[in-house]
Amino acid sequence: MLTVLGVDAGGTSTRVVVVDGGGRALGYASSGAGNPVSSGADQAAGAVRSATREALRRAETRADGVAHVVVAMAGSSVQPDTRWLTEPLAQLGLTALVTFESDLLATFCAGTPADAGYALVAGTGASAVRVEQGTAAAVSDGLGWLLGDVGSGYWIGHRVVVDALAALDGRAGQTALSSMLLESLGLSSPDRSSRPWEQPGARRDELLQEAVTRLYALRPVQLARFAPLAFAAPDDLVARRIVDEAAQGLLVTLRAVVVPEVSGPVVLGGGTISQHGDLARLVGSALGESDGPQVLTVSDGTVGAAVLALRHAGVTVDEPVFATVTGTLSGLR
Amino acid sequence: MLTVLGVDAGGTSTRVVVVDGGGRALGYASSGAGNPVSSGADQAAGAVRSATREALRRAETRADGVAHVVVAMAGSSVQPDTRWLTEPLAQLGLTALVTFESDLLATFCAGTPADAGYALVAGTGASAVRVEQGTAAAVSDGLGWLLGDVGSGYWIGHRVVVDALAALDGRAGQTALSSMLLESLGLSSPDRSSRPWEQPGARRDELLQEAVTRLYALRPVQLARFAPLAFAAPDDLVARRIVDEAAQGLLVTLRAVVVPEVSGPVVLGGGTISQHGDLARLVGSALGESDGPQVLTVSDGTVGAAVLALRHAGVTVDEPVFATVTGTLSGLR
Repeated sequence: MLTVLGVDAGGTSTRVVVVDGGGRALGYASSGAGNPVSSGADQAAGAVRSATREALRRAETRADGVAHVVVAMAGSSVQPDTRWLTEPLAQLGLTALVTFESDLLATFCAGTPADAGYALVAGTGASAVRVEQGTAAAVSDGLGWLLGDVGSGYWIGHRVVVDALAALDGRAGQTALSSMLLESLGLSSPDRSSRPWEQPGARRDELLQEAVTRLYALRPVQLARFAPLAFAAPDDLVARRIVDEAAQGLLVTLRAVVVPEVSGPVVLGGGTISQHGDLARLVGSALGESDGPQVLTVSDGTVGAAVLALRHAGVTVDEPVFATVTGTLSGLR
Repeated sequence: MLTVLGVDAGGTSTRVVVVDGGGRALGYASSGAGNPVSSGADQAAGAVRSATREALRRAETRADGVAHVVVAMAGSSVQPDTRWLTEPLAQLGLTALVTFESDLLATFCAGTPADAGYALVAGTGASAVRVEQGTAAAVSDGLGWLLGDVGSGYWIGHRVVVDALAALDGRAGQTALSSMLLESLGLSSPDRSSRPWEQPGARRDELLQEAVTRLYALRPVQLARFAPLAFAAPDDLVARRIVDEAAQGLLVTLRAVVVPEVSGPVVLGGGTISQHGDLARLVGSALGESDGPQVLTVSDGTVGAAVLALRHAGVTVDEPVFATVTGTLSGLR
């Protein structure tokens, strides 16, 4: 029986599934961060290798029987040298060809067996893809924390920090984000009566200076950890504006890849997407169809990596096979 | 005759002046970057030391005859250990007390002998100060490239890059900044007929990817080098919006330190200020007085460092002494 391996190597965690030719998930395992750009090649390769070994063990599948491996990850197109991963996988006994695919394409294929449509991914970063004939035909944004990723977890977390500090600095109106930020930096007790920065003048400069010092001790991209504060304060005008502008930015990124000829489904993925309550509705209306496109949300790209691996192995992934992959995989997680 | 030494240790260059008790500048010299945070303590100390030695030589003044040294620099309040500079200066034979003052206060004192008023500095960073009784009574912004510095050279340069790339990425309308950015990155010939990114589709992704790669090779704060592009394209709507929003941000930073009780002069300084054509007028009207406050622009804080050194040495710096410092120093530069 044909078996393939789908790997979703993300910046936070790595997921591996072994699937047979009928789409049945035989074994699944996960591990830590698997992206060589954000975590370094050694750590990423180690994470992929350990999850792969465990998924094969659980599937009771021999490594040399795997017909194809697909590794889905961000930045796959700009990493021409793939030996950082192909060599560790070969050491497991895998003899199959390893194909690297974009995380955007895997997200699309995790939501639908259609061969055309769109995906919008917002995790720490943000980008969109138009899929035609099963491949990425156009990509927008994904330019990273410093240069783009509008509406991403980094973008929201950075705005939270900048706006919270501006309020503490007297350059903007008060926002609940200021005390939330200070608390998350360990700079205050949650007891409201002991919030010195709410007493005008007193200690404000000292707290502001200490917050700035602690924030510069982080790597910039780690500001993404403050994104949840914006979603946690829906009654705060500043927080709501950040969330709204992030959603609008994500819609702009999606629209940049939309062409009239392709009206397929829109798949949404990534940890930041799921926190936007009404983003799916906004996406539907933004694409401007009277009945609206089908909008689907997926948790990650594992199903998509498996679907892409099946296609590389010559399997036609139709609706029944796709349903088998999603159904049997959810039974293993 | 009493002599003092004023040092303006900036992130780009360092200026040192020797002044006598009457305010006469006796010797002046400049050198490279003198800020230990941005350049490292060794390089900064070397720059201050070499300019100090040369200024003393030109002034024909003995080092051990100097009564006081003031070093004006950004971040002086958060650098408790000053031995990185006091020890190299002592090796020159200087026996005087060395006092560190903020670059903001030195900017104010470079523009006026008044003991109360405001200064707004926008170079690579941006901040404002309210001066009362000759000292900094309140400061706003200056939170650095990642967390604040709204309207600074970094802030403008970052916006130039983000907006130029968004246009290339199809997420925003066209702007002249895109081709200007590519040219400044060495990614095109200035010959208009050979601008491939202006031919829709062709090579755009490749140029965008290469621009992103080259930009991430810079330290983030170096994005300030692209700020001049915004000022160089006054007819471009995107560029004009960036410049306008920078000016508005600087006004907010200034207003955050304004109190009705202090109506003294406003001193503007820093390399980014002078590029804003009408900022001085905006500042005057923003402070909302019918006759408007006196708005002065200074090139750097050298005069201010000398004035502060004179005051530390017990000299009363009135209008005639102040005029002597500025007049004689401009004769030496």
